[in-house]
Amino acid sequence: MTKTVLCYGDSLTWGYDADTIGRHAYKDRWPSALQAALGNEVRIIAEGLNGRTTAFDDHLADCDRNGARILPTILQSHAPIDLVILLLGTNDMKPVVAGSAFAACQGIARLVRLIRNHAWPFEFDGPDILIVAPPKVRETANVPFAASFVGAIEESAKLPTLYRDLADELGCGFFDGNSVAKTTPLDGIHLDAENTRALGRGMESTVRMMLGL
Amino acid sequence: MTKTVLCYGDSLTWGYDADTIGRHAYKDRWPSALQAALGNEVRIIAEGLNGRTTAFDDHLADCDRNGARILPTILQSHAPIDLVILLLGTNDMKPVVAGSAFAACQGIARLVRLIRNHAWPFEFDGPDILIVAPPKVRETANVPFAASFVGAIEESAKLPTLYRDLADELGCGFFDGNSVAKTTPLDGIHLDAENTRALGRGMESTVRMMLGL
Amino acid sequence: MTKTVLCYGDSLTWGYDADTIGRHAYKDRWPSALQAALGNEVRIIAEGLNGRTTAFDDHLADCDRNGARILPTILQSHAPIDLVILLLGTNDMKPVVAGSAFAACQGIARLVRLIRNHAWPFEFDGPDILIVAPPKVRETANVPFAASFVGAIEESAKLPTLYRDLADELGCGFFDGNSVAKTTPLDGIHLDAENTRALGRGMESTVRMMLGL
Amino acid sequence: MTKTVLCYGDSLTWGYDADTIGRHAYKDRWPSALQAALGNEVRIIAEGLNGRTTAFDDHLADCDRNGARILPTILQSHAPIDLVILLLGTNDMKPVVAGSAFAACQGIARLVRLIRNHAWPFEFDGPDILIVAPPKVRETANVPFAASFVGAIEESAKLPTLYRDLADELGCGFFDGNSVAKTTPLDGIHLDAENTRALGRGMESTVRMMLGL
Amino acid sequence: MTKTVLCYGDSLTWGYDADTIGRHAYKDRWPSALQAALGNEVRIIAEGLNGRTTAFDDHLADCDRNGARILPTILQSHAPIDLVILLLGTNDMKPVVAGSAFAACQGIARLVRLIRNHAWPFEFDGPDILIVAPPKVRETANVPFAASFVGAIEESAKLPTLYRDLADELGCGFFDGNSVAKTTPLDGIHLDAENTRALGRGMESTVRMMLGL
Amino acid sequence: MTKTVLCYGDSLTWGYDADTIGRHAYKDRWPSALQAALGNEVRIIAEGLNGRTTAFDDHLADCDRNGARILPTILQSHAPIDLVILLLGTNDMKPVVAGSAFAACQGIARLVRLIRNHAWPFEFDGPDILIVAPPKVRETANVPFAASFVGAIEESAKLPTLYRDLADELGCGFFDGNSVAKTTPLDGIHLDAENTRALGRGMESTVRMMLGL
Repeated sequence: MTKTVLCYGDSLTWGYDADTIGRHAYKDRWPSALQAALGNEVRIIAEGLNGRTTAFDDHLADCDRNGARILPTILQSHAPIDLVILLLGTNDMKPVVAGSAFAACQGIARLVRLIRNHAWPFEFDGPDILIVAPPKVRETANVPFAASFVGAIEESAKLPTLYRDLADELGCGFFDGNSVAKTTPLDGIHLDAENTRALGRGMESTVRMMLGL
Repeated sequence: MTKTVLCYGDSLTWGYDADTIGRHAYKDRWPSALQAALGNEVRIIAEGLNGRTTAFDDHLADCDRNGARILPTILQSHAPIDLVILLLGTNDMKPVVAGSAFAACQGIARLVRLIRNHAWPFEFDGPDILIVAPPKVRETANVPFAASFVGAIEESAKLPTLYRDLADELGCGFFDGNSVAKTTPLDGIHLDAENTRALGRGMESTVRMMLGL
Repeated sequence: MTKTVLCYGDSLTWGYDADTIGRHAYKDRWPSALQAALGNEVRIIAEGLNGRTTAFDDHLADCDRNGARILPTILQSHAPIDLVILLLGTNDMKPVVAGSAFAACQGIARLVRLIRNHAWPFEFDGPDILIVAPPKVRETANVPFAASFVGAIEESAKLPTLYRDLADELGCGFFDGNSVAKTTPLDGIHLDAENTRALGRGMESTVRMMLGL
Repeated sequence: MTKTVLCYGDSLTWGYDADTIGRHAYKDRWPSALQAALGNEVRIIAEGLNGRTTAFDDHLADCDRNGARILPTILQSHAPIDLVILLLGTNDMKPVVAGSAFAACQGIARLVRLIRNHAWPFEFDGPDILIVAPPKVRETANVPFAASFVGAIEESAKLPTLYRDLADELGCGFFDGNSVAKTTPLDGIHLDAENTRALGRGMESTVRMMLGL
Repeated sequence: MTKTVLCYGDSLTWGYDADTIGRHAYKDRWPSALQAALGNEVRIIAEGLNGRTTAFDDHLADCDRNGARILPTILQSHAPIDLVILLLGTNDMKPVVAGSAFAACQGIARLVRLIRNHAWPFEFDGPDILIVAPPKVRETANVPFAASFVGAIEESAKLPTLYRDLADELGCGFFDGNSVAKTTPLDGIHLDAENTRALGRGMESTVRMMLGL
Repeated sequence: MTKTVLCYGDSLTWGYDADTIGRHAYKDRWPSALQAALGNEVRIIAEGLNGRTTAFDDHLADCDRNGARILPTILQSHAPIDLVILLLGTNDMKPVVAGSAFAACQGIARLVRLIRNHAWPFEFDGPDILIVAPPKVRETANVPFAASFVGAIEESAKLPTLYRDLADELGCGFFDGNSVAKTTPLDGIHLDAENTRALGRGMESTVRMMLGL
């Protein structure tokens, strides 16, 4: 039977293109690449919001960016779900949001608890959870991005270890985005089309295993 | 170029099946039927939440059901969008929510203003809007549903006229769900698989026209 | 020394003109008429918001219409204040808001307690409070207004007695808008320019007495 | 080992005394009577808030009266808990809150789901739940109370059956307050000291059974 | 025709007097000085709240200090508006709020987008926007203020350049408060009466130009 | 007549046991020790929530941890109250919450104002307030706690002086937890059973004096 996978993320999931300052083509976004890799046995739902945090408020946008406040509605809209992929944390490292990898990791833990304790309708089973560490922030000549993400280069480098340990502790899957993708120097944060596709393809085997395919 | 259509709705869009008390199969939900009818030129995004209201709070659920509070985030996640289809209003007629067709109509007007005034990123154009009147509530022997929707039979019958006039006033498209689908007597509210598919197919020509296909 | 009077109200205070579907000229709004009547010994601050309720949510607008949620900020912005005039309650009688004069009266009581318990900065004294009953809603051929205000004709007729008793109980001043002004049949709710000016002039002696002028 | 019982309620639990317009003496509140009846094997925590609703907003007070918004914090503060007694619903029947027994029953269901899905710390077990129907509202010459509770006499009479059925459906205990206590004609809502004590004593055997004492 | 100017600000606009620990006389507040300079062709509305931030929460006060949450209501209350003057950012530099000039600048950008995307009633045109940089924070022997504003001396010095660039990017006017006023050493933040008046007079020509007077 | 004392605190009041990673036995929690010391003339109400802050949001938990948002409800539930003991501030020193002793002190000031300005029902008198400085954070080998509380060792050492000065300024009582108790090196934050009991016993004479016993 067809499996449902929810990709809950930020601009990396939405497909922010630092080159055109727009959105990557559909086929270049990582949820699409993962869909292509997995084929019809799986239905991928892409829920990427520019600026989404794990569980922190950011009132600088015209919509709610706190991942923990929106997630219950999204879970309910797409239930039943077999797997939730959480690719978040980069925005948490903005000093104005939380400013540390440790905080991002606590935010991911909060989202995992939200999913585990969600009141699923119709006695649906809850999903498995895959935690993905975003590729490391790197240096950039882009002044506004560098200013928004002061300190994030060091902090983002800690995410893979923190997320891996958290995943082990909470019984979630883990995938390190750094193993297959690198951020662009254009803004130090985002992925070009090639790296975005690589991220989706790179998750394939982990996702197959978690879905029992 | 591929067009994007956001279907923003409630349990009729989620695909609540009053027979199995579960979710219609993917192919039987109306956004899927519309997708099948329109083919690859269009990408349909289904955002149906059981119990979603237009713009009223309902604290009886484990997630935010107020359509106006969540919509800005959803718009941002799926931008750029060519067309938003609003199929809402049934839940507004619960006495505990708002209890009248007139209130539902005001809620739809609020959502239209939200879309029109949304701060779209990257100077994306805003979408066209299609307002759909849900099929009329009918009598049912289902006690909890009858109790939840006291008065809704009369009120829901007013929706097509109210929504049509609003659509004219605000420059939106209009489609009357009653022209192609009937609610099931099992709970008086929902659509069986056949009627749900009919709803999606029925919108095809209106959607094609609005998208210029 | 100059006295400060805050006029906290709804569209009657903003100056909604049912004839032009716009805003009354500055000189025709009742706070301006009151200012003219009182002269330079008093500074009038007009804070009228279309659709403002006493203490109920109304998510149909693009801003917060709940008078109780916004009042503390307004009090702080204009402190020190000698007198607050509360002219609210009409919107509470919409069925979608609260639908009864009794509820409006409870909302006014809530606002009085908010003012009395406000944490005034710099040990400023709190203001006196004048409760004003809005002129009675009347019949209208205006369909949307009639639909928004179903039942309000009967309910609004109860406001003067309820507000007068409340004012007595809480030690506030009271003024009955019906003694000097009548709503327009154009929408059944609002005041034309002449009646709006009359409302401001009509309050003069009560305000003078309360301010000790 | 000592058992912990949380009494989550409204003014009936707080101990509102319609005679003195104050609070019943400690020994006369029902949680105290229950504590006295059960002895030292059980620790009773009284959490009664005047005006508390099950899951509806009431902005007429200087604090949050929505039972569903506050409950998670209270659960966390008093964990681990063996039994939660829910005695709520009377305030839901105010027209300005929800106005029907059916709504109150849905609110109780929401609280049960909140408790069942709460993220208990330290892997504490969740508590059993006892749903108590409040004694029926009766006629009163008290004008403000009669006005606040229009329609509540008929509605409150439906609560026992609705709550009993809900308790059966959700696997909760049930106790009908009407079996041991009657509301006072002084305001039609509250219990005098004798009836309040009777309520606490009346629950003893049900509570003992649920706690396995 | 008379033009309307909304002055949306913090304690500098309210008129906090660090000498008397109270409020500057009406004539000494900068909106009053600007009003005097511009004469009757213009109506100035002063909306200054002690502690107001651009777009960040500050729960330390008895009212909502987040400028972005309150602004839509204020815009609606005073519409139609020809010009909004934003004089904010000082409070953003408190470490407990946001702690950086960059964050303040992002907050101003958020307010500009809110104004540009506001759902103006009656098809009123939206206003022009003038961004004003507050005078630089300076050293003070006032211990609580120094503690509240750790780091603000350096950060506030960056505001003029950041705000000027933002104004250029977004098509807003810009005025540097430092060009005409200096903060008092009494608390390092506020302006004495002379400097406050100078601020209002200093803006005159810019405001005239923007209003086409 | 029996006096009522509300203990409003965080995990130190809840009784977090760093040894068993659970909750201290009832008799070992400081409110219980204080109850035992004071005897039947006083009724102690324990309201300790793990992670509670003074007045800052922390969205990492499944319930509201902002002490200022919940306090009004708690005050209302337990009124009339003779004394409120505030033992908070440790969690404010987490960088993700506020990160400084000064912020914690401002948060305590906010809570004092909330209590002083609370709309007490039935004209109850407001309570006296005792501010307690939590024992100093110390070094620990516990990695997650050390990471959560970066910088707190230095900051927490400032609390006694800041709180004492605040108490003097606002007319509150003060007690320094460091005078009788030390945090455990197991996590650097919490108190073992002996130190927790010592804290309750240590407050006895101050509480007696404030209650006039």
